[in-house]
Amino acid sequence: MVAEQTIPEQTYNPVTPAIVEELKNIVGARYVIHGDEEKLEPFSHDEILEKAYRHMPDVVARPRTAQEIAAIMKLANREHIAVTPRGAGSGLSGGAVPIYGGVVLLCDRMNDILDVDAENMMIVVEPGVVTSQINEHVAPLGLFYAGYPMSLETCYIGGNVAENAGGGKAVKYGVTSRYVLGLEVVTPTGEIIELGGKLVKDVTGYNLLSLMTGSEGTLGIFTKIILKLLPSPKANVDLLCLFPSARQAIEAVPKIMTQSGITPTAIEFMDRSSVKAGCEYLNETIPYQNAGACLLITVDGASEQQVEREYEAIGELCLANGAFEVYVADNFTTSERIWKIRRNVAEAFAVISPIQVNEDLVVPPSRIPDLVDGMAEIGKKYNLFVPTYGHAGDGNIHSRISPRPEVSKEQWYQLVPEMLHELYTLTAGLGGRVSGEHGIGHKRKQYVPMFLTPETIEVMKTIKRALDPNNVLNPGKIFDV
Amino acid sequence: MVAEQTIPEQTYNPVTPAIVEELKNIVGARYVIHGDEEKLEPFSHDEILEKAYRHMPDVVARPRTAQEIAAIMKLANREHIAVTPRGAGSGLSGGAVPIYGGVVLLCDRMNDILDVDAENMMIVVEPGVVTSQINEHVAPLGLFYAGYPMSLETCYIGGNVAENAGGGKAVKYGVTSRYVLGLEVVTPTGEIIELGGKLVKDVTGYNLLSLMTGSEGTLGIFTKIILKLLPSPKANVDLLCLFPSARQAIEAVPKIMTQSGITPTAIEFMDRSSVKAGCEYLNETIPYQNAGACLLITVDGASEQQVEREYEAIGELCLANGAFEVYVADNFTTSERIWKIRRNVAEAFAVISPIQVNEDLVVPPSRIPDLVDGMAEIGKKYNLFVPTYGHAGDGNIHSRISPRPEVSKEQWYQLVPEMLHELYTLTAGLGGRVSGEHGIGHKRKQYVPMFLTPETIEVMKTIKRALDPNNVLNPGKIFDV
Repeated sequence: MVAEQTIPEQTYNPVTPAIVEELKNIVGARYVIHGDEEKLEPFSHDEILEKAYRHMPDVVARPRTAQEIAAIMKLANREHIAVTPRGAGSGLSGGAVPIYGGVVLLCDRMNDILDVDAENMMIVVEPGVVTSQINEHVAPLGLFYAGYPMSLETCYIGGNVAENAGGGKAVKYGVTSRYVLGLEVVTPTGEIIELGGKLVKDVTGYNLLSLMTGSEGTLGIFTKIILKLLPSPKANVDLLCLFPSARQAIEAVPKIMTQSGITPTAIEFMDRSSVKAGCEYLNETIPYQNAGACLLITVDGASEQQVEREYEAIGELCLANGAFEVYVADNFTTSERIWKIRRNVAEAFAVISPIQVNEDLVVPPSRIPDLVDGMAEIGKKYNLFVPTYGHAGDGNIHSRISPRPEVSKEQWYQLVPEMLHELYTLTAGLGGRVSGEHGIGHKRKQYVPMFLTPETIEVMKTIKRALDPNNVLNPGKIFDV
Repeated sequence: MVAEQTIPEQTYNPVTPAIVEELKNIVGARYVIHGDEEKLEPFSHDEILEKAYRHMPDVVARPRTAQEIAAIMKLANREHIAVTPRGAGSGLSGGAVPIYGGVVLLCDRMNDILDVDAENMMIVVEPGVVTSQINEHVAPLGLFYAGYPMSLETCYIGGNVAENAGGGKAVKYGVTSRYVLGLEVVTPTGEIIELGGKLVKDVTGYNLLSLMTGSEGTLGIFTKIILKLLPSPKANVDLLCLFPSARQAIEAVPKIMTQSGITPTAIEFMDRSSVKAGCEYLNETIPYQNAGACLLITVDGASEQQVEREYEAIGELCLANGAFEVYVADNFTTSERIWKIRRNVAEAFAVISPIQVNEDLVVPPSRIPDLVDGMAEIGKKYNLFVPTYGHAGDGNIHSRISPRPEVSKEQWYQLVPEMLHELYTLTAGLGGRVSGEHGIGHKRKQYVPMFLTPETIEVMKTIKRALDPNNVLNPGKIFDV
């Protein structure tokens, strides 16, 4: 797979000195990076560092306004050069990688919080705002933004919308798209359109808001984002539930979801190796020693009594379903310690083994025991290290699969395509998909046909062709048109 | 407006006897209605009975399977005839009216509940299932479907998805689209595609699920629908809060939403005339006599204690903000009596005045006092009866505007276009839209340009043209392409 990655033949024009001049005229000379390999290099990849997924841009432009972006898109269509929008570059599927070179359109200067509207419980932001800043801004008003992903401290909200990012609170609160009420969008052909507004309901025309959300920068560039906020929960408790085995922990998840009558805020799963990796990376200790796996379950609500009743019910369900210990974290410090471990699992594995594939599988929630079991079997068969962790309450399991010491680098690259084919066949057979929240980008696009029929993919491509007739906006992502 | 309604020149071929034969071959002769004006007439309109919005179909076909529908769409493209999908015909914007004649594709035979999946908290249904049957089916399992609209006892779930219907519980639970996890869709060109699945998260390709939801039968016909269910709330209370004036009631709404820290399940508004009309229509009495308006507020939750705490907090907020009385309905019978009045307001007004326009305006929640005030002024200026009621917690206000006795029928038809222009200018000025949940259909399409820019509409049309190149699926709805 990693080795197989090929980019279909380049069909774009080169970025000439005249085009660079025109970009400088549009955004200002100091906001154009060109002719300096070292300065361009950071824009050749996202968080996935494998060489196979990298590609250098010809030029980086850092616009400040929707009008500047529209002018760049008009230029790109006229000159037939590729434009790849980019936020913080914290993606995991290559969405922001300029695989055909051309222009990287960096949104870092568009980072204003434009309007905090407490009366409507909404916030209007530019795409370059770091996601965690939103909650810092609205917390004093008793409000919160529930759609944030795990990387909230580094990612940009524009990227969250582009990828329809998920997050730790999605079981109860849903993912990014539930909170996107309005967008100002520059289309692939350089028009500026307004979708939605400060409206919680709206059926005036097609729902382009949701089509744009998760379109991975292939259908439009967001220049203004209206997000819905919620009243902050008044109480919040985390349970760390230890189970003897991964199977027991994961089998408890659908039971908690259906038998408690409660919708928890989060149900995160970490197998033993994931907790261990996270703890060692952070030099942190939590009492997981005898556990084969754990669930990190959050309950929040409007009062302490309610939350207490709910976490007690859930804790008892866990104990009845095989947990041997349930720790209650009812203060911010303890909660944050545990969550920090969870948030850093991926980072930890990246340090342990730079050679790895990073998975984001999603299946119907009731099928996660089968998925996790199947992944363990694949690990045995290929002699690989297959840790599992992630958003078990949503059926979304992550893994960072890497070779065991006895597998050589050459063997690894040889076995990966076959192993992934087996993993995805298993996932598809369970009614699952290749990505729950990280996106397709160019990293997973060759596997999309294992999950969607040709007719379904064709409808998606038809929309892309119609809105981007010259295929200049983030080409080569999700599918080749 | 009503008088102005014009249908652009017919460009479809006639439905020949040979085409009728072919339809009979596809769905079976007994499931084709043709050549009988009386039997065809019910399919010439939806719940809006105005002559101006009616149009007779040439033929009605009642398919049983996706394959039959696909065959009909292939036929329609080959012969260039219009196809209008139809559910229960309970719409309010003309979505199911065959304004170019041709084939009405009636989904009433596709009414099976295919799979109740308690483990995943999902249900799989065909489009012709009556919406209330879903909750009847899943209630014994401790589950419920939260996306239903007010017309749940008559409407079909397929129509709910086509219109992205809203409902009485949308403040807390959102509208239909939040619950649509999967769709089997017949495309305008007659392909069968599968979108989503039993998945609560999925970013594998574009979000066509949400694009299809609310597309008013113009982008696809749904033949299988996977819906998300939630654990049933364990407790439920309704508050009937009486205010001296509409202004005071409506001004309390954003305060309840922001100051209570609680998200109520519903906040419905009825002005005095709406409560009166509903009560008289049902021969029901509730103690509204001294009230200028009332709010019907629902709170639900996982325990009686929690709900009690929440409704007490909200009741106190209402009293602090001008309510002179708050009645608590904490048993099913009393709740159902009050909700039945709310659900029957529109019916009641339809009986009082068959000449009327039916509005579904939506504005940012904080602007509803301005909208309701402005509507009262418009009523005074044009000598009209402008009752207001609806989903105040969502900023979605309904009205059935009708002439006062001293206004003649001729005067009414003359003043309606000017009056609506004024009403929509007001709504647009408040950041609002012409439809919050009823849809555009052909009834409101001429007003869409008052709310969306030409560039935004053009993107929508581009998608329609790309997916339905012969413009045969529900043509003339939302916009003319």
